[in-house]
Amino acid sequence: MNVDQVETPAVIVDLDVLEANIRDLQAYLNRYGIKNRPHIKTHKVPEIAQMQLAAGAVGITCQKLGEAEVMCDSGIRDIFVTYNIIGDAKLQRLAGLAQRSEIKVSADSRVVVDGLSKAAREFGFSLRVLVEFDTGLGRCGVQSPAEAVELGERIARSPGLQFGGLMTYPLNQHTAGFIEDTARRLTDAALPLETVSVGGTHVIRQAHLYPWITEYRAGMYAYGDRLTVKSGAVPLERCALKVLSTVVSRPTAERAILDAGSKSLGTDLLGLDGYGLILEYPDIRLPALSEEHGHCVLTAPSHRPEIGERVSVLPNHCCLVSNLFDRVYGVRGGVVEKEFKVAARGKVV
Amino acid sequence: MNVDQVETPAVIVDLDVLEANIRDLQAYLNRYGIKNRPHIKTHKVPEIAQMQLAAGAVGITCQKLGEAEVMCDSGIRDIFVTYNIIGDAKLQRLAGLAQRSEIKVSADSRVVVDGLSKAAREFGFSLRVLVEFDTGLGRCGVQSPAEAVELGERIARSPGLQFGGLMTYPLNQHTAGFIEDTARRLTDAALPLETVSVGGTHVIRQAHLYPWITEYRAGMYAYGDRLTVKSGAVPLERCALKVLSTVVSRPTAERAILDAGSKSLGTDLLGLDGYGLILEYPDIRLPALSEEHGHCVLTAPSHRPEIGERVSVLPNHCCLVSNLFDRVYGVRGGVVEKEFKVAARGKVV
Repeated sequence: MNVDQVETPAVIVDLDVLEANIRDLQAYLNRYGIKNRPHIKTHKVPEIAQMQLAAGAVGITCQKLGEAEVMCDSGIRDIFVTYNIIGDAKLQRLAGLAQRSEIKVSADSRVVVDGLSKAAREFGFSLRVLVEFDTGLGRCGVQSPAEAVELGERIARSPGLQFGGLMTYPLNQHTAGFIEDTARRLTDAALPLETVSVGGTHVIRQAHLYPWITEYRAGMYAYGDRLTVKSGAVPLERCALKVLSTVVSRPTAERAILDAGSKSLGTDLLGLDGYGLILEYPDIRLPALSEEHGHCVLTAPSHRPEIGERVSVLPNHCCLVSNLFDRVYGVRGGVVEKEFKVAARGKVV
Repeated sequence: MNVDQVETPAVIVDLDVLEANIRDLQAYLNRYGIKNRPHIKTHKVPEIAQMQLAAGAVGITCQKLGEAEVMCDSGIRDIFVTYNIIGDAKLQRLAGLAQRSEIKVSADSRVVVDGLSKAAREFGFSLRVLVEFDTGLGRCGVQSPAEAVELGERIARSPGLQFGGLMTYPLNQHTAGFIEDTARRLTDAALPLETVSVGGTHVIRQAHLYPWITEYRAGMYAYGDRLTVKSGAVPLERCALKVLSTVVSRPTAERAILDAGSKSLGTDLLGLDGYGLILEYPDIRLPALSEEHGHCVLTAPSHRPEIGERVSVLPNHCCLVSNLFDRVYGVRGGVVEKEFKVAARGKVV
């Protein structure tokens, strides 16, 4: 099928670009001896995770157990779930995953560690647990090196658990100081620091500047979007994912309406101007979305794009777009080569 | 199953409230002789559409053909697709729907009307087409009564098509003037104005003030959310949908992290403060979402909510939340009575 025959709105992934992004990041991390553990939340497609593994990734990262279950079902056997797993139902599912696969998780509190240990004993599995720390995102994570070491020691003495190291997201100017302080304290406590896992596409090319990084978790590098273009992490010509859309209305000479709205493009603004970049008409703004309509504003009266014309929209945030579609089309040279099922779409539980 | 056993994040719909919302809107519209044609984009659940029809709705509204196909498959036989249908593939699908069901569509341009007529002739179906007009949203729709009449006449003389009337969204202070002017011109043109269809939950209780409204399309009235609370259309106690979430981290005394992020709550801000209202802790703010984390800020240091505690989040925009989940749980008195499959989720094509 030619890409022109794909009904819109649709997610198109340029396979040449995707493959180049996967290959180049792997080469960069290989050069510096950093393990690559890509985050699949961006694409949620087992086949793309397999491409990342085939290129040299040591395993994958998932945010939710549901994502990990889908990836494990597809045969992937080394998964880091960077999440605090809480509650009997989820701990039982974690046990199921641990019996099929090498699973690691993160933790940032005693409550989480104690729950993991209880489940490991009850269901008879063992688990590496990495301590999550926070150096400024203001999300999860212990707040100080002292807390990190205290939690690491608790993991190390908890039946069924092994202290797997430290993890954070994202890498920033406070990360190095935190790691170095924590590493000294861990040495004093005779606790080996096996892994230091850092995440985030935006600063990934700085990873080699920090010799203590042993593993990198990046997601968006595979697809790219307006956010990664802004940060410089993935330039425009290296953005693999686009939302193909059709102009469905031209009510005025300055307005065009697309068939892609918030249920196709997502509503993350992230400090950007508008909700996407129309690649064929970069001067046209996209300042508003309805659920099924994109509201475009032309800078000057024009009959283009006309009703029925197709345009390619680079979305602000590719990870949200993937999660809105059941399938994405892998395209090479204008021809649809593969349809990928977004098998982990919606796996928030 | 008790609602406490539902794994989080999850969408919970209070069935008593849902039924009351459906019943009360129907009673209001019945009182004034206005036909009810609820928009299913809010819930995307065939069973809930059937509840709306059983209460007295004349049919349903869908935004996309994919939604209409799902609803038609479930046995619904009167569907208004309020969209410009463009392109051979979509016109062929429209033909398929028209052969199984009473389908109406909207149009706002000659290009769309001519495409519909060509398809009606080619595939042998007939179709009512309503002219969409714009009185301020700045989305689709003709811009003047003269254009509306011209397009209505074009529909009326197009083989396979019948002029079905006028439609707009939303009802605002310019709608009445536009309708009255257009109605006069249609009378002059000897074109009967069969239906005037207006949409939008926020001003629905004003519908009776406009005697020319024959049909109302509302979606959000069924569920309610922070936006409808703000507009007064659905008060807080009449909000049926909530996102059940678990606290997974308490990194500081002023911060709590939920397991519901932008992939569960959506990122529509719509002028509201934060991304949701935590019903058990209305003073706690939710100013940021990661994909799988909700970042809560407490107004004062507190140990509540503690790790593992469940909270109910009223989202900003229920229509986006429905579209993120494969199922929603219908709950009565704390017990899950039904699991609804969100069968039209993701049907953007």
